[in-house]
Amino acid sequence: MTNPTACVVVIGNEVLSGRTQDANINFLAKGLGEIGIPLREVRVIPDVPETIIATINEVRAKYDHVFTTGGIGPTHDDITSECIAAAFGVPWEPQPEAWARMAAHYAKTAEGAAAFNPARQRMATMPRGASLIDNAISIAPGFTIGNVHVMAGVPRIMQAMFATLRTTLKGGDPILSRACYSVGAAEGQIAQGLSDIQARYPDLDLGSYPFYRSTGNGVAIVAKGTDAAKAEAAIAEVTVLFESLGAGVIQGEPA
Amino acid sequence: MTNPTACVVVIGNEVLSGRTQDANINFLAKGLGEIGIPLREVRVIPDVPETIIATINEVRAKYDHVFTTGGIGPTHDDITSECIAAAFGVPWEPQPEAWARMAAHYAKTAEGAAAFNPARQRMATMPRGASLIDNAISIAPGFTIGNVHVMAGVPRIMQAMFATLRTTLKGGDPILSRACYSVGAAEGQIAQGLSDIQARYPDLDLGSYPFYRSTGNGVAIVAKGTDAAKAEAAIAEVTVLFESLGAGVIQGEPA
Repeated sequence: MTNPTACVVVIGNEVLSGRTQDANINFLAKGLGEIGIPLREVRVIPDVPETIIATINEVRAKYDHVFTTGGIGPTHDDITSECIAAAFGVPWEPQPEAWARMAAHYAKTAEGAAAFNPARQRMATMPRGASLIDNAISIAPGFTIGNVHVMAGVPRIMQAMFATLRTTLKGGDPILSRACYSVGAAEGQIAQGLSDIQARYPDLDLGSYPFYRSTGNGVAIVAKGTDAAKAEAAIAEVTVLFESLGAGVIQGEPA
Repeated sequence: MTNPTACVVVIGNEVLSGRTQDANINFLAKGLGEIGIPLREVRVIPDVPETIIATINEVRAKYDHVFTTGGIGPTHDDITSECIAAAFGVPWEPQPEAWARMAAHYAKTAEGAAAFNPARQRMATMPRGASLIDNAISIAPGFTIGNVHVMAGVPRIMQAMFATLRTTLKGGDPILSRACYSVGAAEGQIAQGLSDIQARYPDLDLGSYPFYRSTGNGVAIVAKGTDAAKAEAAIAEVTVLFESLGAGVIQGEPA
């Protein structure tokens, strides 16, 4: 079967300014591969309504699933939720379940019911038709509308949301990988042979990655696909290719 | 003056598969801010010719500068250079200076002139009109064509290329930041006051970032812009806002 596809949209000036090193892209890339919904594109965009709306509408038409991170907190720069409503052309309104949960939560705090103030009420306000994405860490949920899954930007909260979400998504065969590497080899020596191997395994994605370590420079070759036997066969051929250069080969990726 | 704008395009299946944690986005975000060419968008795209060509043509029309990373090595999955030529509608041909340099380099290796094989010759093949971006680490240069700057994906080589490139780019005023934070404060308590401060400083980008540390949770507020005095004034107001809650405030960002 053909795997469904994913796009991640990172929403936040802090990643674009360099203030924050994104950690969500790599986490989602791995997690989506595991459930057979390979990540095909990432956009990092600023907290600008027109940009968010236009980007969401472009990528939700193009990919089977869209995952957003960031911009769902209570402050003025958290505008993802209302922009998603605008993108879908639906009202942005209190989500009854989220509202009830958050009202009950804040009522129990020292400040009492007043703590569920307008800023926090925004976190319980969602596009009409949204269903909640629960998480074990924060009281504020993410949500799904159509094929768009809206999650927090804080990595540990995003990860908790994705842990819930992934069990509900229907993916294809998991994307798996096999690899080998050779210390001392250079990409320029194996490029032609590697290209020939790639041509014999059109279903695999054969990647070549030079590495530079204190223990030596070399090249790692990674075969990715849904068929383990094919990935193993391709890496066996790469092993022979490395050995034909007189280079030692180690199975797996360099540590 | 208005600052010129930048877009970064990360080209590589390895970032989308999760095999590689990107380190270039954050480096370029900071470096571009320093030279006053703020990063406005990032795309991470696969090694697919049509995607690369369409993305480059979209973003080079939209931003003042485009910086690509990845896909300029000698192997079959390195297709950035020919795709950039296709995007600009110019021939992809030997770049005389790069060709001469690389031929001389490989002639001195143990293998001799034959080491400058067709795979390595691809690294000296560029869109017509490209000018070289030198670097102190690898013999293969990056290049600039029009407003598109094509760099390596390996971080230390990319960084060496950017070190050369940044001296040639005409930016605007540097983007600087001022910050303060409060352990124990919650975003939901300061959201309204912060929104009011943002409204008084429309030229600044005021960001609110919750943090979760073993030493305590809290909120950091960062003001970014080109006017240091305004950024300092805004952070002074945020300090008063935090203090009005009875919270302690520390200047700068949490370590």
